[in-house]
Amino acid sequence: MKPRLLIVLLVAMVAVSPSGIQAQQHPSLFFTARDVAAIRAGAAKYPLMKASLDAAKATMDSAFAHPMDVPQPGEAGGYAHERHKQNYREMQLAGELFQITGDAKYARFVRDMLEKYAVLYPTLPANPYAKDQAPGKLFHQALNEANWLVATSIAYDCVYDWLKPAERARFEKNIFRNMSDWLSVNQAKEFDRIHNHGTWADAAVGMIGYVMHDTTYVNNALYGTKRDHTGGFLRQLDLLFSPDGYYMEGPYYIRYALMPFFQFAEAINNNQPELHIYDYREGILKKGLFAALQTTFPNGVYAPINDASRSMDVTSPETVLALDLAYGHYGPDSNLLGEAAIQNEVILTRGGLAVARDLAARQTPPKVAWKSREFTDGPDGKDGGLGILRSGAGADATMLLMKYGVHGQGHGHFDKLHFIFYDGGNEVVPDYGFSRWINIEPKDGGRYLPENDSYAKQTIAHNTVVVDETTQSAGNYQVDEKKSAQRDFFDASNPNVQVMSARADGFYDGVRMQRTMLLLKDSRLPHPVVVDIYRLTSQAQHTYDYPIHFRGQLIATNVKYKPNTTEQKALGARFGYQHIWNEAEGPVDSVARLTWLDGHRYYTVTTAAGSGAQMILGRTGAGDPNFDLISEPMMILRTTGGDQTFASVIEPHGYFSELEERSADATGVVQNVRVIASGADGTVVQVTGGAGLKWVVMLNNGPASATAKHHVVAGGQTYEWTGNYSVSGVR
Amino acid sequence: MKPRLLIVLLVAMVAVSPSGIQAQQHPSLFFTARDVAAIRAGAAKYPLMKASLDAAKATMDSAFAHPMDVPQPGEAGGYAHERHKQNYREMQLAGELFQITGDAKYARFVRDMLEKYAVLYPTLPANPYAKDQAPGKLFHQALNEANWLVATSIAYDCVYDWLKPAERARFEKNIFRNMSDWLSVNQAKEFDRIHNHGTWADAAVGMIGYVMHDTTYVNNALYGTKRDHTGGFLRQLDLLFSPDGYYMEGPYYIRYALMPFFQFAEAINNNQPELHIYDYREGILKKGLFAALQTTFPNGVYAPINDASRSMDVTSPETVLALDLAYGHYGPDSNLLGEAAIQNEVILTRGGLAVARDLAARQTPPKVAWKSREFTDGPDGKDGGLGILRSGAGADATMLLMKYGVHGQGHGHFDKLHFIFYDGGNEVVPDYGFSRWINIEPKDGGRYLPENDSYAKQTIAHNTVVVDETTQSAGNYQVDEKKSAQRDFFDASNPNVQVMSARADGFYDGVRMQRTMLLLKDSRLPHPVVVDIYRLTSQAQHTYDYPIHFRGQLIATNVKYKPNTTEQKALGARFGYQHIWNEAEGPVDSVARLTWLDGHRYYTVTTAAGSGAQMILGRTGAGDPNFDLISEPMMILRTTGGDQTFASVIEPHGYFSELEERSADATGVVQNVRVIASGADGTVVQVTGGAGLKWVVMLNNGPASATAKHHVVAGGQTYEWTGNYSVSGVR
Repeated sequence: MKPRLLIVLLVAMVAVSPSGIQAQQHPSLFFTARDVAAIRAGAAKYPLMKASLDAAKATMDSAFAHPMDVPQPGEAGGYAHERHKQNYREMQLAGELFQITGDAKYARFVRDMLEKYAVLYPTLPANPYAKDQAPGKLFHQALNEANWLVATSIAYDCVYDWLKPAERARFEKNIFRNMSDWLSVNQAKEFDRIHNHGTWADAAVGMIGYVMHDTTYVNNALYGTKRDHTGGFLRQLDLLFSPDGYYMEGPYYIRYALMPFFQFAEAINNNQPELHIYDYREGILKKGLFAALQTTFPNGVYAPINDASRSMDVTSPETVLALDLAYGHYGPDSNLLGEAAIQNEVILTRGGLAVARDLAARQTPPKVAWKSREFTDGPDGKDGGLGILRSGAGADATMLLMKYGVHGQGHGHFDKLHFIFYDGGNEVVPDYGFSRWINIEPKDGGRYLPENDSYAKQTIAHNTVVVDETTQSAGNYQVDEKKSAQRDFFDASNPNVQVMSARADGFYDGVRMQRTMLLLKDSRLPHPVVVDIYRLTSQAQHTYDYPIHFRGQLIATNVKYKPNTTEQKALGARFGYQHIWNEAEGPVDSVARLTWLDGHRYYTVTTAAGSGAQMILGRTGAGDPNFDLISEPMMILRTTGGDQTFASVIEPHGYFSELEERSADATGVVQNVRVIASGADGTVVQVTGGAGLKWVVMLNNGPASATAKHHVVAGGQTYEWTGNYSVSGVR
Repeated sequence: MKPRLLIVLLVAMVAVSPSGIQAQQHPSLFFTARDVAAIRAGAAKYPLMKASLDAAKATMDSAFAHPMDVPQPGEAGGYAHERHKQNYREMQLAGELFQITGDAKYARFVRDMLEKYAVLYPTLPANPYAKDQAPGKLFHQALNEANWLVATSIAYDCVYDWLKPAERARFEKNIFRNMSDWLSVNQAKEFDRIHNHGTWADAAVGMIGYVMHDTTYVNNALYGTKRDHTGGFLRQLDLLFSPDGYYMEGPYYIRYALMPFFQFAEAINNNQPELHIYDYREGILKKGLFAALQTTFPNGVYAPINDASRSMDVTSPETVLALDLAYGHYGPDSNLLGEAAIQNEVILTRGGLAVARDLAARQTPPKVAWKSREFTDGPDGKDGGLGILRSGAGADATMLLMKYGVHGQGHGHFDKLHFIFYDGGNEVVPDYGFSRWINIEPKDGGRYLPENDSYAKQTIAHNTVVVDETTQSAGNYQVDEKKSAQRDFFDASNPNVQVMSARADGFYDGVRMQRTMLLLKDSRLPHPVVVDIYRLTSQAQHTYDYPIHFRGQLIATNVKYKPNTTEQKALGARFGYQHIWNEAEGPVDSVARLTWLDGHRYYTVTTAAGSGAQMILGRTGAGDPNFDLISEPMMILRTTGGDQTFASVIEPHGYFSELEERSADATGVVQNVRVIASGADGTVVQVTGGAGLKWVVMLNNGPASATAKHHVVAGGQTYEWTGNYSVSGVR
């Protein structure tokens, strides 16, 4: 750990002497009495606040219309599981509405439901449906129990003063202390873990601690159960984010963790403002939120790297919550306001009010316009990073993402130098995401499925080269977790020639990998084009598999393949290959071209794959006895050698509408890609096509340097450039 | 042919003595001078007319901004093909806009483009890219040439008076007569064919005939080239529709044919009103349009039976055109207005104006509310039919369609007793549609692909029983075209118990098939449920395959199957089975259950399949060397025997949202289906499930009769009912 950081931590510890909790009035977690008055007034003026308030009331009207039920615990994804989730959501809403409207029916709802939990909870053992997880009691995992407690803390805070002392005493004894002890004592390991599960548990116990005025719970939550800052909320803020705010588990999990991070931060801020939690680590919470939003596709979906759903997006309640709280604390921001317009709801807080007010003041909301951006990874920012190149605006924007950071803990994948290409409203060269049918009971209770380990995490499930049909670090999590890829260079200063480069050495014994990806905008082409130059070097001979996953329909290829029409076999037996059907295979004559259709647009990948390459056309679904996998196609280019450079262009082109029965430009403009040279001096790649298109891409293969001069002679021609790269011919 | 019909025809022939063409003024095809004035005035008052007019102008602004191009002919789906299509669309719009705005730039556009065609057209031979089709010159098929001429006739009519006589003479000689002769003389067989290609050709030649005041062309178009009414437009109106207006080729092709039918009808009406074309055959044009609209799903997509696109819908220009013309002639109709609101555009005619006016007069457009309906098939209505049961309204409506009519000419499929189930916004138990990537050049020029014959047309590609792994009529088109299935009974009078039944005998030697489908609405279930009772009888032993095609993800089944995880084989070698991968197979213990997820809803099919049945889980994609097929799953229940009754329930249930990470009721309510009896006397099926659900369905297996009494004793119980069916237990 950096000395500077240690000092910050020590200062923080000193600041919170055991009885440092200020606020003794309620509510003081989610909002204060003053906030409540402002929200009440604002709802009359700002349509979005009114709509959100009305939606909350409608949800509660529906809750009032149905019998209250606090069932015996059950399986993940089953009725009881879903019911307890619904209950805590309703209690939180009811608490908030009680404060805002003053209508006692909402307070009664919270009390009546807590009475039921006060009867049930003390009778519960550890939940018997837990598998590998730390168990809860109401839920199969402690994580869900923490979710319950975070929401219910807010509800309890809102009705605290309205309840009779005997009721409070009963709820605190039977439920809240019981549950807090379960989370922070029985499950202390999970509680102290530097992981989103730890954050949830800390937030839960810390928040109910504030409501109950219990310093012990609060300090455990802030500094860990040992109070030595090896666990706890602040430690998580130190270690789970890079200095840029990138969260090591990736976008899907930061989305999830945004809720406890921001809920607890808000509670801390209201109760211990002297901690200046929103400024902690130079505003890491703000950076974390912005990094999360900047890793979304132009359609608002979080890029599904690592274990991740394919459809989680910025409208998720966690994102709404974090955005509104951040907006309230850090002040107006055009991109946040644009995202808020997409969310089209606000939370019932001071921040939500500010968002509603600023949107009401505008004729049309601002457009979200995230820029190309590189994020460092690792707590000190030295463990590689994540590069994002963007072009265009709105729904038709293009985004190219390359992953070269840390493994990212238990939800990480073996996917160094993996990329995702998003274009025309679709994830065109996709990440498979997780293998999980979340919350679907018949699919193993909605848990992660075996194919998540055996396929989704494996290298071949990603768009990065697989060496010897083996996963990076031989698929060993402990080994992989200790390594990271390395940033090489990143330059988005020229909107027509954007480039990012990274290296990953040692993920395969004796193999060094360097990938440089460019997003080029040429006026002769309708859309930005990806140029991908993937260089591998090794003393020994290896098999290199260069995969491109896609969706939609294969349209054409120049490869004369042999299709497996009456019988097909799995492509291998392990490292994910056992999940791929070998649909066809054929030899590549120097350049492989493949065109597919995805949505309304065609995509052609043209790859110089070297001599003796084979194209394999595959499809997920083999080795999948329970039909857990989603059936999707892929193309793999396989070569054998020591040093190998794959140079590809991915070109979006044309238009297709089945409804309109219209097709245009089903064949792309790019015709050829050639690796002219690729050695220690540098790599030179030439791309040619129709309309006189001729690009030459020159790359530095040595240590990154913006000033070093390079000189490569190949085919009787001399190529000279200064710095890490040079691209000629883009008009 | 019926005597009554013959008389109508003779009367019609008499009415049109050679020089019977009235109108000598222009325009007189698409609209008249009086209509034009009304449109001009209406555009100021009715938003939809203004928007449509603005859209037309915007299209032309874009056309003016690009160089005019009349290229040498090319391949289907290629640039030249698409360009000539664009050209005729632009000429038609320009002609209309010239009339409405009076701006000569539009007339000049038409003239300048016709000048180019007048140079090109006389030089053209038969198009060399034709394959099995009657060739055009500009296009690979005469059909597209007719499309061109229909649109250009309107354009020419609009600028006729503005052109110089020499220009007209040149265009008529070089283009119009040339093309008309090609279509009606060189391709006379196609011209006289009772088929949508014939309709297009007739409309094209008839319409340009009116503009050129050439009675010969007109009469050829109306009565066939032999003038004996064995071909021609009127004969097509007689034979291509059943008396109910159902078009024998099916919804996708009537959608296409609506355009020439209505364009030509409008032209006839304007030029020879004495023909009363809109009243011909008791208003068959109106019936045809209504039948077309009533075979759409609740989302507006035409049910893709026979050769058909999966996404063609009511917003297609042909439907807009026919709807507006029909609205203008037959008067206001709430369902038409509802569909027009979905279309959100009108054509620039008197009918379009009426639609725009009536929509402008309402706060909200009326909801489309098609009812359950049976259509007869065949020109005299005696060749079976098509049954459609509907429940609910709007986007969440349910639709069950069963097909039991004629083969439907060259685009027909071998799919008697096939059904489609539409629910929750999705085609849940789907029809594969056609195997064609329409207009995509690399996919064989956008033509029908080999897999259309070898898979899409075959019986196994549909949801109907396949006997001995062989297609109906052994896949012989000529044989199948001569037969039809037969209507049995249809009763939609009780909205909670709707039923349709049909028979198909002789499609397999010695095998009689009867399928009865019910749509039941029980207050204990959230959605209507399908009950399907499929009875086969035969003296000989056969293999019966009962297929259910689905989309989305398999969630669970009660069958202990053996998955093919490392190797899989095609399910057969012919009749479509060569295109199905055998993914898994297992024995059924009396009742087979399978649950899948499609969109936000789960579906469970529960089938009593008899003893010794096997479940096969398959997926399309085998035997598909060019990746033409779409990869989709299916379930097949296979039994062997003589008499066999499959009884199934298809139950929609629960909710899933990956975005919200919410799942509910992934297991259905229906638990068991039992065939209690199924003999000559009748079939008795019992369905049981949670919430005390117990339905008994009793069916008459003899000739349909609403009054016959039935009596079946089985398992010590007596079942008695009157009429074709009885259902007990639906609450």
